[in-house]
Amino acid sequence: MTKEKEAAPRASRPRKASARPGRPPLMEDPRAEILRKAAELFARKGYVESSLNELARAMNYSKGAIYNYFSSKQEIYDAIIIFTLTGLYETAAKAVKDEDPPVERLRHYMMAHARFLADNYDCFVTMLVGFSGMANTELKDDALALRDAHEGLLRQIITEGVADGSFREVSAAMTGRAVLSLLSWMVRWFKPGGGKSAEDVAQEYHDLLVRGLLP
Amino acid sequence: MTKEKEAAPRASRPRKASARPGRPPLMEDPRAEILRKAAELFARKGYVESSLNELARAMNYSKGAIYNYFSSKQEIYDAIIIFTLTGLYETAAKAVKDEDPPVERLRHYMMAHARFLADNYDCFVTMLVGFSGMANTELKDDALALRDAHEGLLRQIITEGVADGSFREVSAAMTGRAVLSLLSWMVRWFKPGGGKSAEDVAQEYHDLLVRGLLP
Repeated sequence: MTKEKEAAPRASRPRKASARPGRPPLMEDPRAEILRKAAELFARKGYVESSLNELARAMNYSKGAIYNYFSSKQEIYDAIIIFTLTGLYETAAKAVKDEDPPVERLRHYMMAHARFLADNYDCFVTMLVGFSGMANTELKDDALALRDAHEGLLRQIITEGVADGSFREVSAAMTGRAVLSLLSWMVRWFKPGGGKSAEDVAQEYHDLLVRGLLP
Repeated sequence: MTKEKEAAPRASRPRKASARPGRPPLMEDPRAEILRKAAELFARKGYVESSLNELARAMNYSKGAIYNYFSSKQEIYDAIIIFTLTGLYETAAKAVKDEDPPVERLRHYMMAHARFLADNYDCFVTMLVGFSGMANTELKDDALALRDAHEGLLRQIITEGVADGSFREVSAAMTGRAVLSLLSWMVRWFKPGGGKSAEDVAQEYHDLLVRGLLP
């Protein structure tokens, strides 16, 4: 699961001390930058309609230079999925503090997920069609494991909340599914930079789920 | 919005009295049958990888015969979207009874949506990538209007529930979005014919939304 090191979220990679401010981002972390630009292209034109030629042009880079890092468009797609799921899980795991009560932990989980989605919007759009598009079966297994880890973290919060009486007796599987459905569907209607932030939305969803609709 | 008559849900079209039992379904309503088979193909292989030749073969039909009803694969895709949204809206509208209290109306709306999704699963899978894939801009407007009508029906239930004190003061827009997110994301994990029915899921989601998580 940790074999795709390049797929770690960029936030977790400190900028190298040697990096000059004016340096093009490509030079800092070429793999991450290729993934970012490719996701932008896939999200805009669709995977099938996008070409490595176009990607190279958009990056002001030669196609051969891209081949130094990835052997095909498909490999880039697979890496985007792993990058996104790794970052999603790590961001949520970092946001959830053991000492917080379950209601708060649920809120931090949802906010972190929403924030990561907004920050990596094109990756999520690329991922919307799902892991079925992945070619490398080992990476696909990694993707499923990462998704399960992310969902597992959430189920744990709910299970503990039920155990300590913070929540009523709900199914952790069903409730976790509901939380992730709310957050996942944001990729279909939410646009970063609009009126509400992704965290505003997560806050509202959290309130709805916790308090329900009854007066 | 009603111009694509062929896109009406099949359930609303009574079987013609003259139809013989042994008659292949194709003869009853060829357009609806083409849409159904095409959705099956698109859901399985993806839109891009599917061809009219393959569709014709799967239907035991000549390609020319398909051209009697649709001029292109794209036209079939567009018609699937309109068929799905029309059926979704009509099914929900029929399920919601004015005389029921808002909590019940919300439940019927959610159950109807889930049931229609399960019954037309391939159409929803085909639609997952969204209306952005539609080529005919007029039909795209129809699709958006149908989606708005479906969402409008839901918002009305919530608004009335808030007005008569059945629900606390929630935003109808946000709550409606949450309900549709829960139901829409089912296309990514729910498989018809598995353990739980789509209506079981809708029932659980309704309970979660209405009662919330607090004990």
